[in-house]
Amino acid sequence: MKSDYFTSLEGGTSGQPLGLNELLAQLAFNDKGLIPVITQDVKSKEVLMLAWMSSQSIKQTLATGKMTYWSRSRQQLWVKGATSGHHQSLTSMSFDCDGDAILCLVNQTGSACHTGRKNCFYLKVDGSHQQVTISK
Amino acid sequence: MKSDYFTSLEGGTSGQPLGLNELLAQLAFNDKGLIPVITQDVKSKEVLMLAWMSSQSIKQTLATGKMTYWSRSRQQLWVKGATSGHHQSLTSMSFDCDGDAILCLVNQTGSACHTGRKNCFYLKVDGSHQQVTISK
Repeated sequence: MKSDYFTSLEGGTSGQPLGLNELLAQLAFNDKGLIPVITQDVKSKEVLMLAWMSSQSIKQTLATGKMTYWSRSRQQLWVKGATSGHHQSLTSMSFDCDGDAILCLVNQTGSACHTGRKNCFYLKVDGSHQQVTISK
Repeated sequence: MKSDYFTSLEGGTSGQPLGLNELLAQLAFNDKGLIPVITQDVKSKEVLMLAWMSSQSIKQTLATGKMTYWSRSRQQLWVKGATSGHHQSLTSMSFDCDGDAILCLVNQTGSACHTGRKNCFYLKVDGSHQQVTISK
């Protein structure tokens, strides 16, 4: 599952630079050409959402500084906030050890969730593990 | 992409309880029966990793309190730390608005990443957006 490329990085020295385009070409996109992206609020550290990016949306996000996902329902690039005004301004992007997930830290304008909630993870298992509670 | 079940919850009152098994039955597992899981350190708020769970691994995680993923490379349940000793003790599990992602807060023993790093997202795009830097 993990490419030789990412295995070769594991023992790398801290601070060692790699070419961005070389790394992007090695990412483990799924059979639809997508990779999961975790978006975290840089100030509160709250995890806001999980979405998906194509190679093009990664490049557009880096070029514009605005989080740009691939909408699987609409099958098109999705500039977060283009309709709602709830933009996400990128502050950093990191890739994981297997090259199959991305973590982006952002400054969030307004709500991340389309329901109006601050983040999308609003359905929480309660202490008894029998029920799920709806959060604000 | 989003089920009627999750749409119906959007306007729910805060604190409203739902049956856990009913919700689990509605989750949007992919064509391999898996759903992505974000694991976050409950104390530092650091995002540790992204992995995948099957229905069985969700239930086992809730039953045991130990994070139990589905290993896509080994095609079997993967109790995090079973080999390394680097267990993750679950403190909360939440589902997102579309029912297609899970967020787990954990107490992490040792390192989350198999490379020995605290978290898996150690390849960070630098300020110039030309290079990626290896973090400690």
